[in-house]
Amino acid sequence: MQRDKALAIVEKQLKKPRYEHTIRVMDTSIKLAKQYGADEKKAELAAIFHDYAKYRPLEEMKRWIIAEQLPKDLLDYHHELWHGPVGALMVKREVGISDPEVLHSISVHTTGCVGMSVLDKVVFLADYIEPGRAFPGVDEVRKVSEKDLDKACWMASRNTINMLVSLNRKVYPDTFHAYNDLLNSTGGNA
Amino acid sequence: MQRDKALAIVEKQLKKPRYEHTIRVMDTSIKLAKQYGADEKKAELAAIFHDYAKYRPLEEMKRWIIAEQLPKDLLDYHHELWHGPVGALMVKREVGISDPEVLHSISVHTTGCVGMSVLDKVVFLADYIEPGRAFPGVDEVRKVSEKDLDKACWMASRNTINMLVSLNRKVYPDTFHAYNDLLNSTGGNA
Repeated sequence: MQRDKALAIVEKQLKKPRYEHTIRVMDTSIKLAKQYGADEKKAELAAIFHDYAKYRPLEEMKRWIIAEQLPKDLLDYHHELWHGPVGALMVKREVGISDPEVLHSISVHTTGCVGMSVLDKVVFLADYIEPGRAFPGVDEVRKVSEKDLDKACWMASRNTINMLVSLNRKVYPDTFHAYNDLLNSTGGNA
Repeated sequence: MQRDKALAIVEKQLKKPRYEHTIRVMDTSIKLAKQYGADEKKAELAAIFHDYAKYRPLEEMKRWIIAEQLPKDLLDYHHELWHGPVGALMVKREVGISDPEVLHSISVHTTGCVGMSVLDKVVFLADYIEPGRAFPGVDEVRKVSEKDLDKACWMASRNTINMLVSLNRKVYPDTFHAYNDLLNSTGGNA
């Protein structure tokens, strides 16, 4: 799908600041894809659609989770986590995108998972470090992202866990699994 | 098994400071068991044997994990985690303790798990708050332990995760499953 067509579809689904975020994630994803050898067109497409479901009504997302082949345990965690997996399925059904690698990257862009592909990591990291983000510690992740994709992704997942735990929030298992797996990839400690 | 006999068995397995720690875990477990309605004799027995395998050679523990019905993923995590599950099995085989509730409490005393029994929580928490411990934040957990077993256990698991993540260490899945599950029990946030 051409970029302009994809952007036009997504623009209708998002509020303006979220659409602008999407453009920045797209630019950052393409840059990271070039650098780390992911398919640039797939990175572009996954980035454009990564937040496709962001503003769908919670009740609608809940219905998709219950009715479709999606992890039911999502319902026990914050609804912020729903738009990735639900979005991937909506993009497949409503937009007709069928590339499983692109859909997987959309699905795991918020939580990460075990065994992320380079494309998954590119979109996950781009969503975290795009220039509009101001998370505590994001500048350090941006710096590391220039040299080490796995380490930068691991730092992003670590910062997310720190943030959640400091707020007494639950941590979705895939987030922890990604943290452990990425730490393994970077030769980290047991 | 009588306390004196159990203590005599365990004393041979441990270095002196660890044996003294065991006595304090025993005293604290009995106190918590009284307060929260766990079986005091089971709490005493589990506490006495909780560190039974602590000083077994790593290679021996590794062999047990490989040869027995123990979670193989333990081998991908720090060996500090091995003595709980391996210890429970050793205590069963070598000492003849067969009570599954006692053995389970020994098994999960370091990591916690989903769906901990009151006995599991008592031993897990006693190991964390016994008077000799000086973890950051332990006094706050001691205070909460007087009123709310689940919340105190959750705080202990939260502090452990904070410590591990701050040291760039992996987090064993049962540890974060316990964290999420205990947060649920305390009516915590998604």
